[in-house]
Amino acid sequence: MTQRPYNLYAGPAILPLEVIQKVQSELLDFSGTGLSILEISHRSKEFDKTIKEAEADLRTLFGVSDDYYVLFLQGGASTQFGMIPMNFLNGGVADYVDTGAWAKKAIQDGKRFGTVNISASSSDKNYNYIPSSLKLTPNAKYVHITSNETIGGIQWQKYPDTGSVPLVCDMSSDVMSRRVDVSKFDLIYAGAQKNIGPSGVTLVIIKKSLVETCPDNIATMLNYKTHVKNPSLYNTPTTFGIYVIGLVMKWMLKRGGLKEIESTNFEKARILYELLDTSDYYIPIAEKDSRSIMNVTFKLKTPELDEKFVSESKKAGFLGLKGHRSVGGCRASIYNAFPLEGVMKLIEFMKKFEKENS
Amino acid sequence: MTQRPYNLYAGPAILPLEVIQKVQSELLDFSGTGLSILEISHRSKEFDKTIKEAEADLRTLFGVSDDYYVLFLQGGASTQFGMIPMNFLNGGVADYVDTGAWAKKAIQDGKRFGTVNISASSSDKNYNYIPSSLKLTPNAKYVHITSNETIGGIQWQKYPDTGSVPLVCDMSSDVMSRRVDVSKFDLIYAGAQKNIGPSGVTLVIIKKSLVETCPDNIATMLNYKTHVKNPSLYNTPTTFGIYVIGLVMKWMLKRGGLKEIESTNFEKARILYELLDTSDYYIPIAEKDSRSIMNVTFKLKTPELDEKFVSESKKAGFLGLKGHRSVGGCRASIYNAFPLEGVMKLIEFMKKFEKENS
Repeated sequence: MTQRPYNLYAGPAILPLEVIQKVQSELLDFSGTGLSILEISHRSKEFDKTIKEAEADLRTLFGVSDDYYVLFLQGGASTQFGMIPMNFLNGGVADYVDTGAWAKKAIQDGKRFGTVNISASSSDKNYNYIPSSLKLTPNAKYVHITSNETIGGIQWQKYPDTGSVPLVCDMSSDVMSRRVDVSKFDLIYAGAQKNIGPSGVTLVIIKKSLVETCPDNIATMLNYKTHVKNPSLYNTPTTFGIYVIGLVMKWMLKRGGLKEIESTNFEKARILYELLDTSDYYIPIAEKDSRSIMNVTFKLKTPELDEKFVSESKKAGFLGLKGHRSVGGCRASIYNAFPLEGVMKLIEFMKKFEKENS
Repeated sequence: MTQRPYNLYAGPAILPLEVIQKVQSELLDFSGTGLSILEISHRSKEFDKTIKEAEADLRTLFGVSDDYYVLFLQGGASTQFGMIPMNFLNGGVADYVDTGAWAKKAIQDGKRFGTVNISASSSDKNYNYIPSSLKLTPNAKYVHITSNETIGGIQWQKYPDTGSVPLVCDMSSDVMSRRVDVSKFDLIYAGAQKNIGPSGVTLVIIKKSLVETCPDNIATMLNYKTHVKNPSLYNTPTTFGIYVIGLVMKWMLKRGGLKEIESTNFEKARILYELLDTSDYYIPIAEKDSRSIMNVTFKLKTPELDEKFVSESKKAGFLGLKGHRSVGGCRASIYNAFPLEGVMKLIEFMKKFEKENS
């Protein structure tokens, strides 16, 4: 194979090459069983070791205490949009912060199970910023935020203080990309397919005390209680996906843990935004104090130039740079596994493109 | 690697070796993209081709007409246990046939959303048979059956005629193992991890006219309507799992389709049951007219002998023969990918074990 393309897809997204190579090398013989991970029982001792190690490594890396359950579920963040109000809203009031497409989907499902108060919204500027002041409801059942909006390319820089009201956070697109004080949250959830694994697994980190409040009259699989009794193994989970997450955790540990990953992510975003800020040719979309370190959105002077840029970048080996249709322009998704050198190469390409198309 | 063990696990279960080898060979370069299937967008044209081909091949193999949607969802059959009554029961009456552990779980969730009439039950004999006569409710919302019970090793030989009442069937453990007249059903669902792929994908085959009756007031992801608009791609699906299912479909086509697969499955089951029937040493558990061609349950004369058999069989390379704790004894799960020669080897081993332990 020649040089691999640079994978800048928004998700499912780039995984560490050495993780994929490891999967490949042991695909016919998992853990000395002589069988593939694809065909082994989720109750086998080999898989049990895998899922327990994945959880333990994740706890170490992300700083998750024993006050929380760590679950690997199915259905994506979109299923959590429904499960959260089904379990915790129950006709009450919840605060949601409307920061874009993902927040809106969470809000839509929230409304089916109670009253949703929109604490703040950045819809006035097509979601190019994170609102700075929130109108919180006293005694709300919970406050829901979306840590990073992949489409607008905006990200909470500092999470809100919600006092005694539980803070629920969709971290699908930035989970484990930076250090976070998990103890500030009551529920963190994330589709795996950006930073920690392939699609088909949903990470849920939930405070034990919150689980106790789940009602009994909802469908078995939609009740968090079901999943904590025999963690993640009430029914057959996505065994392969959990196995790959485990390998990604090992890769992160080897890289030096979240401190090092975060530091590289900050640097990747810094040099890319620096180009956008110092150039008259590329225009950053997100407001400065809301910029995502995961999804860098920008545009050129005309939609025609955007299109040419995306097309030429593809030829040069940079895949996935087309912006979401609701925002237009371009987007570089630079998740954990995307290397600093890749961003440097992208910047090089952008400079060259500017020179050739000015 | 030396000889691969014989994989007789109940599920996740054996996959065709050539499918796993194909996955392995192209894991670093999916469809000429230079990227892994694990890190490619579910909206990419390459994945779009994959999911469309998987669906088309499945329709060809299983005889699914255009009156049905074919969906690849998440959450396992266990999530369907809740989704079905949530969408179609709504305070009405549904008939459920109680044939074992899986039927019971479906019933448990059914009761949360309406009245469940148990049309028949084989609990009187620890679920070793499929009831022959059903007390059906006129105008029930639907009749729910479990095509094959993995634990008891029983299987419907002839599906019931429910007239104009929709027939809903959990086919998790025997889907696409034999020819079925799909047009008799309104909803067929199955976890993929027995006969058609790895865990993490749920196959749903649903009549278009039934989808029209789904209510609007349920959580987005739990409404079948959501999943049919942009089939299986409302949110990010388990891309890898769907890709593997696609490869299994190609393997089935190459084997000559469902007619050939069925014929081999019948033969595998026939020779194994023949041994049980002609032996005084091994005792079949399921009643003759309810026997599963997928999960063959049997026991030896004492629990101690069962244990010795399982232990010795493992040493001889036969994995997963321990019966479920609620039934005891032994169980040989001989799904589609388990070869006829493997069953012959197992029979050989069983005869040898009998000789040495009589």
